[in-house]
Amino acid sequence: MKSPRNVLFIMCDQLRRDHLGCYGHPYLRTHNIDALAARGLRFDQAYVSSGVCGPSRMSYYTGRTMTSHGANWNRVPLSIGEITLGEYLRRHGRSLALAGKTHMMVDKDGMERLEIADDSAVGLRLSTGSFDELDRYDGHHEPGCESGYPAWLRAQGYNSARPWSDYVISVEDGRGLVQSGWQMRNVRWPSRVAEPHSETAYMTDQAIRYIEAQGDTPWALHLSYVKPHWPYVAPRPYHDMYSLDQCLPPVRRKAELDNAHPVLAAYREHEESVNFSRDEVSDTVRPVYQGLIQQMDDHLGRLWDTLAKLGRWDDTLIVFTADHGDFLGDHWLGEKEMFYDTVQRVPLIVYDPSPAADATRGSVESCFTSCIDVVPTVLDALGLPPYSERVEGQSLLALTRRAAHTANTDNAQKWRDYVVSELDYSFRGARLTLGREPGECRGWMVRDAYYKYVHWQGFGPQLFDLQADPDEFVDLGRDLSHESIRSRMHAQLADWHGSLKQRVTISDANVASRTNTHKNWGVFFGEW
Amino acid sequence: MKSPRNVLFIMCDQLRRDHLGCYGHPYLRTHNIDALAARGLRFDQAYVSSGVCGPSRMSYYTGRTMTSHGANWNRVPLSIGEITLGEYLRRHGRSLALAGKTHMMVDKDGMERLEIADDSAVGLRLSTGSFDELDRYDGHHEPGCESGYPAWLRAQGYNSARPWSDYVISVEDGRGLVQSGWQMRNVRWPSRVAEPHSETAYMTDQAIRYIEAQGDTPWALHLSYVKPHWPYVAPRPYHDMYSLDQCLPPVRRKAELDNAHPVLAAYREHEESVNFSRDEVSDTVRPVYQGLIQQMDDHLGRLWDTLAKLGRWDDTLIVFTADHGDFLGDHWLGEKEMFYDTVQRVPLIVYDPSPAADATRGSVESCFTSCIDVVPTVLDALGLPPYSERVEGQSLLALTRRAAHTANTDNAQKWRDYVVSELDYSFRGARLTLGREPGECRGWMVRDAYYKYVHWQGFGPQLFDLQADPDEFVDLGRDLSHESIRSRMHAQLADWHGSLKQRVTISDANVASRTNTHKNWGVFFGEW
Repeated sequence: MKSPRNVLFIMCDQLRRDHLGCYGHPYLRTHNIDALAARGLRFDQAYVSSGVCGPSRMSYYTGRTMTSHGANWNRVPLSIGEITLGEYLRRHGRSLALAGKTHMMVDKDGMERLEIADDSAVGLRLSTGSFDELDRYDGHHEPGCESGYPAWLRAQGYNSARPWSDYVISVEDGRGLVQSGWQMRNVRWPSRVAEPHSETAYMTDQAIRYIEAQGDTPWALHLSYVKPHWPYVAPRPYHDMYSLDQCLPPVRRKAELDNAHPVLAAYREHEESVNFSRDEVSDTVRPVYQGLIQQMDDHLGRLWDTLAKLGRWDDTLIVFTADHGDFLGDHWLGEKEMFYDTVQRVPLIVYDPSPAADATRGSVESCFTSCIDVVPTVLDALGLPPYSERVEGQSLLALTRRAAHTANTDNAQKWRDYVVSELDYSFRGARLTLGREPGECRGWMVRDAYYKYVHWQGFGPQLFDLQADPDEFVDLGRDLSHESIRSRMHAQLADWHGSLKQRVTISDANVASRTNTHKNWGVFFGEW
Repeated sequence: MKSPRNVLFIMCDQLRRDHLGCYGHPYLRTHNIDALAARGLRFDQAYVSSGVCGPSRMSYYTGRTMTSHGANWNRVPLSIGEITLGEYLRRHGRSLALAGKTHMMVDKDGMERLEIADDSAVGLRLSTGSFDELDRYDGHHEPGCESGYPAWLRAQGYNSARPWSDYVISVEDGRGLVQSGWQMRNVRWPSRVAEPHSETAYMTDQAIRYIEAQGDTPWALHLSYVKPHWPYVAPRPYHDMYSLDQCLPPVRRKAELDNAHPVLAAYREHEESVNFSRDEVSDTVRPVYQGLIQQMDDHLGRLWDTLAKLGRWDDTLIVFTADHGDFLGDHWLGEKEMFYDTVQRVPLIVYDPSPAADATRGSVESCFTSCIDVVPTVLDALGLPPYSERVEGQSLLALTRRAAHTANTDNAQKWRDYVVSELDYSFRGARLTLGREPGECRGWMVRDAYYKYVHWQGFGPQLFDLQADPDEFVDLGRDLSHESIRSRMHAQLADWHGSLKQRVTISDANVASRTNTHKNWGVFFGEW
């Protein structure tokens, strides 16, 4: 039986689940992603641990919830005590290459405390989150020397000290004036770089080059696109490939604004929400957002071809996912963070080359999965220890390889029956609006097949009946007839907290071997 | 205004709250501890974070709950990412001396992972939990070179390679035969060491010598007695100073054994519970246990005299407490761990020399406090930063110094209105009895002024009505009329979890200064 030797872990940034053909988009032509779904298993209830890049990614990289890894916002350092997938792989003589974004911030205070020098082997490893950085490119700002992209752009003739600002996210408007794509009004125009010089093209090139260079040596690669995340500038021809009538309309109702939950109301005062709540903004951005996805799909076609040419479909585990969605004006919100499925529920496709997964190819899995499941899936696929004293997710191979795939087998029963996502909005303007201190701004979502319960520090809860109201328009957080549901799900939150890993310094096997052995240690308490 | 310059943090091991005169014992003559209570503030609702030495102490030393520090059993290493009181003091040019027990286990795997050598400055510091070890003495086994005690015993004429086993915890029975104090039947006889050579006397000597040697230099000392913890051997005259009729009778009822909670029932099968459930055992041990406490109190008198002689009552903060109690047969249990007040509620006396504390001297504080409050109290007393991104307790000086002390002021309202304690019994025989895996064996107690709710993984809850049943005889965990109470307290557990510190790598002040400042960083999302 063939088992995976290589790992290709593809992340898209801010990619909505409903913006892929295989997840039901009526117009977007994501043939290559759809083809992956046809060859693998498509997860229909995949959730992130937080609707924010940083904490979501740290969960993808550690296999642990936001509460456990602690990096609860962008640019919050990942504690020196946390172990990432790359470090697990290194323990077993493997490595995890990186092309693209990680949002990893090194714990400088932690290093200083333990007197680990920046330029020591350990210091260098920690600074990369234990990725082998082919090309580290976090996007959304002018890249520095950690990426080869700016120098390469200059070599292509984009003559600027800031080629990303001046070309990649800049456009020429109808009057020939250069405008910044930071201002969403300008994204109707194409990027000033030619398509082969765009971020998506460049990073795909890095990935293809790496995979080709490995030959028959086993490899693992994290290809992490910075698109379709803002700035929403697309290169020609993707900037106007889709017309507005080929876009999904905003999902919002006026009634949502009445008696809205205080945190939600504060978020709707954020600049991105105010703007995206106007049709003009949503109508301008949505076609370009689709174009950026279409572009990514086209480049994934090149990557699939490379895998085919090299025979790598036979021995490569592929995980395709996103760190969260993008409201684009849904629910009168811009950006992400809030606990609607629009943002929390992401695409997830796993291609498992093992013949044991043949029975599930092309099918859809409805068990609840979480971004913390990726690390245990990779460890499992490569036959490495599960590090279960620390890793909180579950291996998805239990689902790709279950012999007869049906939605309600006993296997599915053993899987989790709800997911939790978290938010700490301490860094956001909403904190000031609501007059709260840092660390008093936490929220949790408990989402099962029937209800979504959202618990907020210092405020009442939210509740949505997902059967009656799948688009989450009606907040039942104060509805008297749903008190018992809220109470039950509040308690579920306690149980979830209690299930998180606590004792990370020794293994479960160590505990098992030492259970009730005090007399072996010369300790004889309780004897008469 | 005088403020504390020195810190004396006294811990007793396994000392029951009800075994001190000031907490109501009718016969024990703990005049010195009582005198401390008369000069300071006595806390009546002080709880530990876990009824087990290791996790309780790690909470005392880190100011964090067991869930947060993760060292959830004895001999579980404290993660390299955790910061102890000694380390906080070192950051500010202070140190924390140790005489006695800590139960600190260094995180060897964590050090290896970060390539920190055992003999490096950091490695040596981590191995001591950042205590300055005057004399490290964890007790309960033959001490090694970390303590001067065995060599000193030999110098006093106890000629043995194992003077602790052969003399300190050994006795000569009525026939002149040497017997081990590990067997509780033998503790009716006195220790083979003279009283001045006992553990309590020796460790008090270390403390006095240290304090005298500091002169006017500010100091901080953790004096951590290993008594009255087992082996329950007392030196003459303390071994028979108390008669059985001067002891508290076991608190237990036959009806407790009917339909007992499964975890409790499994604990009652442990050897120490089986033995302590027999009157003969309880009757033999209780008088000696009292003698060991009496001895400790007598030595504290020497310590108080030293402080008086040196003028140190003017500038020394004193914290006196215990890591948990001892069932001694109450509730048909031996040892500790289970969530009865017998074990979870401990003595806590704080002497604050500041004139601001004069109004509370000799009074009793009924707010709920926790062992996680000691670290913030010491930091506060010495004018050091609160490290609130990490420390989870609250400074008790808010209570010693509240201007007019009454039980129900606004100040008291701002204090916590319940406490939580935790247990993970994965290492205990009960896990095997109950057929559970390591990490599936967790329990939590939520204790407010009216009820105690205990939540167990994999089993139903327990509930006690503390007004109607202060001795916790009647488990209402399955009582239909208390469903709403259980539900409310289960939800409180979720809120408690959600209040624990998550983002430890940057400070709250850092977050506050960066709130809503993305445009300063050149990030302009959401602009039209």
